[in-house]
Amino acid sequence: MPHDNEIRLQELNNTLVKMSELVGTAISLATRALLEDDLALAEQVMSGDAQLNGLNADVESLCFKISTLQAPIARDLRMVIGAIRMASSLERMGDLAVHIAKQVRLRYPNPSIPRGLIEIFAEMGQAANKIVEEIGQVIATGDPVLANRIAQHDDVLDRLHRELFTAVLAPTWAHGVEAAIDVTLLSRYFERFGDHAVTVAKRITHIAVGPTFAE
Amino acid sequence: MPHDNEIRLQELNNTLVKMSELVGTAISLATRALLEDDLALAEQVMSGDAQLNGLNADVESLCFKISTLQAPIARDLRMVIGAIRMASSLERMGDLAVHIAKQVRLRYPNPSIPRGLIEIFAEMGQAANKIVEEIGQVIATGDPVLANRIAQHDDVLDRLHRELFTAVLAPTWAHGVEAAIDVTLLSRYFERFGDHAVTVAKRITHIAVGPTFAE
Repeated sequence: MPHDNEIRLQELNNTLVKMSELVGTAISLATRALLEDDLALAEQVMSGDAQLNGLNADVESLCFKISTLQAPIARDLRMVIGAIRMASSLERMGDLAVHIAKQVRLRYPNPSIPRGLIEIFAEMGQAANKIVEEIGQVIATGDPVLANRIAQHDDVLDRLHRELFTAVLAPTWAHGVEAAIDVTLLSRYFERFGDHAVTVAKRITHIAVGPTFAE
Repeated sequence: MPHDNEIRLQELNNTLVKMSELVGTAISLATRALLEDDLALAEQVMSGDAQLNGLNADVESLCFKISTLQAPIARDLRMVIGAIRMASSLERMGDLAVHIAKQVRLRYPNPSIPRGLIEIFAEMGQAANKIVEEIGQVIATGDPVLANRIAQHDDVLDRLHRELFTAVLAPTWAHGVEAAIDVTLLSRYFERFGDHAVTVAKRITHIAVGPTFAE
């Protein structure tokens, strides 16, 4: 039978995996809300964020409990400290999905993005969804090889972000300043989403290989 | 004579205060670089960021050491867990100063912002500088009353961010799409800077009053 200590560390891991699943749902729904101008979906993303914030607090309570009851060392301690960092990143990824949803609400019933940019934002949504799916697997398995692949997916988001800038700054841009600002911020939210996923992946590598903590 | 444990906790606190000082320098220099189109200052901000990242790693090493050597409980443990969160926020505030500096480098030798917006960005810089000065005091003293005042300063940054949007979206805006995007992103960096300061202040309150960890 597993030791109580192991059970608590597993619970910590499960909570982070659950957070990644909720983040996945949030970014999928937010992307659909954006592409389909769907206010109900956008509001679902906003109201769903409280659960993610709750799990972030749960991670910290668990870390507090583990530290107090079992004085973890070495890899276990790296996991405890790393869990606090990863929970922050995952919570922030949820916030970014909420930012996208709020933009949909702000412009509703008008479309949030010009029709010509639907495809690029659909690709961003797919890449963001892919990255968070893999983050869940990376956390669940603690596999540093899988963790290294996350950076490649993030490259896709960075490329799409640059493409978006090119489109907005082209002489053919016909949607004015407000739409330019809207899509720039939206694109930045997806890009930051990817950055946070990379941070989580790096942390899993640190936990697995320790003991350095260089960022 | 103080106990070794107390010395290490004080060192943790000092490291966070040192981070807040470096963040203060970074945002001051970045603002000046922005207002005066000063490439050398911008590059100073960029090269200075490594020290801040190093201190972030130091905080984690210290937390690791404290956890291993003295199995902290109650307030000490809240400080250890809180220090990890606060170091993340401070490091991110440094990144935001770097983002501002990079924007200066991108547009150099051209001005980064239209002349008419110099005043609003000067105010943002002052508010950001004020907020980080107070954060240093809040960390050094652990005073929850002082921590509560941070939110008021953040309100100034939020107001300036909204004013900026109003200026950019006014029919009188004559600087085109690229400048609109530039100043929107710059303003967002200042606004996020303030958000992170509020997060740090809340954390100090949690450490002081414990034991809840609700965000």
